[in-house]
Amino acid sequence: MRSEFDFIQNIKNKYGLARLGDDCAVLPKDEKTDMVVTTDMLVEDIDFRLDWTTPEFLAHKSLVVSLSDIAAMAGTPVWVLLSIGIPEGLWQSDFIDRFYEPWHNLSARFGVEIVGGDISKTPEKVVINSVVGGEVSHGKAVLRSGAKPGDAIYVTGELGGAAGGLQLLENGYRYGVGPERIWRKHLMSKQLRPWLQGRMDNLLHDVEFATAGIDISDGLSSDLEHVCRESGVGARIYANRIPVNRWLRGLTKSETERLDFALNGGEDFELIFTVDENKFLPPPDSVFRNIGEITANIGIIELIRDGEPEILEPKGYRHF
Amino acid sequence: MRSEFDFIQNIKNKYGLARLGDDCAVLPKDEKTDMVVTTDMLVEDIDFRLDWTTPEFLAHKSLVVSLSDIAAMAGTPVWVLLSIGIPEGLWQSDFIDRFYEPWHNLSARFGVEIVGGDISKTPEKVVINSVVGGEVSHGKAVLRSGAKPGDAIYVTGELGGAAGGLQLLENGYRYGVGPERIWRKHLMSKQLRPWLQGRMDNLLHDVEFATAGIDISDGLSSDLEHVCRESGVGARIYANRIPVNRWLRGLTKSETERLDFALNGGEDFELIFTVDENKFLPPPDSVFRNIGEITANIGIIELIRDGEPEILEPKGYRHF
Repeated sequence: MRSEFDFIQNIKNKYGLARLGDDCAVLPKDEKTDMVVTTDMLVEDIDFRLDWTTPEFLAHKSLVVSLSDIAAMAGTPVWVLLSIGIPEGLWQSDFIDRFYEPWHNLSARFGVEIVGGDISKTPEKVVINSVVGGEVSHGKAVLRSGAKPGDAIYVTGELGGAAGGLQLLENGYRYGVGPERIWRKHLMSKQLRPWLQGRMDNLLHDVEFATAGIDISDGLSSDLEHVCRESGVGARIYANRIPVNRWLRGLTKSETERLDFALNGGEDFELIFTVDENKFLPPPDSVFRNIGEITANIGIIELIRDGEPEILEPKGYRHF
Repeated sequence: MRSEFDFIQNIKNKYGLARLGDDCAVLPKDEKTDMVVTTDMLVEDIDFRLDWTTPEFLAHKSLVVSLSDIAAMAGTPVWVLLSIGIPEGLWQSDFIDRFYEPWHNLSARFGVEIVGGDISKTPEKVVINSVVGGEVSHGKAVLRSGAKPGDAIYVTGELGGAAGGLQLLENGYRYGVGPERIWRKHLMSKQLRPWLQGRMDNLLHDVEFATAGIDISDGLSSDLEHVCRESGVGARIYANRIPVNRWLRGLTKSETERLDFALNGGEDFELIFTVDENKFLPPPDSVFRNIGEITANIGIIELIRDGEPEILEPKGYRHF
């Protein structure tokens, strides 16, 4: 059974489309500036469920998934196009107003201008497609393909929280419903209303020496594999350095299970980036955590757990 | 019951979003160039039916709807992002290959580079979202809002064919199936595989004096109303000047019915544009047809039929 990655690889080879494979397309804008553009489609009952979320949360998430792609390339978001497909019944409800208001407020907060879009009817499911365009200094977009053996691997924030929240939702918990437990609220919030990499502005702007970057949408193991694939390298990461979401302790007492959430859980929308370690020192109060290093062991990701190496298979979300 | 237009108008007023309302967003690129960007979502069982079309036709149409928006602004298309959502079953079939190959060939033919996209799973329906970016000389994008009383109104090509094709499909005819009638084939082809405004390159490039433009996606009556609304003007058009698709004669002997297809049928992807008539003379062999003039009668579109004026209500496709 072919995967989405095989299909994209096949397309790239067949048509010579070197530009495919990053979080954003990079296009020349003017002498000093490149444009970065990303498109993301969220589909009801695949990417979200209306009985799990709210129009407000959905608005937030649909914008953040694209802003996160821009951030992963070290870009500054500038404009957005929003296409919504919704069924007749929801059109007649307050859904679209409850969606649009926070969506607009968040885009304004990030200084992103809404410049257009499309509204369509659908037979029954909601589909949201957002396109965000941003800017980056010419030649400075951080690609997936620039990691080199010896580079240090950093991640932002804490990982696995969104996957923990997903498990809670699948088990019948709802945000804001029933007896409140702070850890449940945090985990579900991370799934339903992901925030951007610890703080709002673009972290990779500060990292002049980033050689490669990607946002964690599919999961650390899978997204790190994307970097290795595009860069033609391998990676070694250390279990005891992975920043596991602190609220997962509520969900499971097993450290192994918590690590599994952090390694393979998707949709945290934190960043992975690689740097020349001789040049980069993270700022003292930063959310950057060094989790390992890039190796010449092409395509292999090693996980060092209790001093013992094991091969880490990419087990994050696969679209197909 | 509110319409999509009311909603968009409401959004524009509430948030001061002057840029909404054209076929494309216009964004500054460099000193000499503006960028035009458009996004279009096609939803299975709303915008197309898989048992009516083929993956090849669908590929063609999904690109043409966006290229047509670029053409309506007098832009030149440059890049495209393609997002496809498809159900598991189709992913396992040859659908995606049969879709992608002609899609790529057509984009190459127009000199449009595929720079990225997204592939998602959907529960059951196919959704296609294409985003096309183009370029136009700074300040030269043709907007909907520039029409002035006295301007002449032109359309390209012949109108009503796509709607005629839709009726055939709804009545059970299928392209390439059963006894061939050349008129049926032409009409269904116009619906399933619309071509771009008579010829491939951008017609409005040649029209230096275009004051306003729009592509005919909803129907002549509705799209002309969009121009009048955005420009704060009215229009007068003449029934005997409307270029009615010649193949509609096969579908109906009634001239009134044929005119109705041409006035209100959507998806022809021809262009409407207005010009200062003192400055513009259409080239001798052009597909441009003068169908009337812009008036100061704000919001009113008159149709002159057999010398008698009547009010033309916008009866084209409404998304909601």
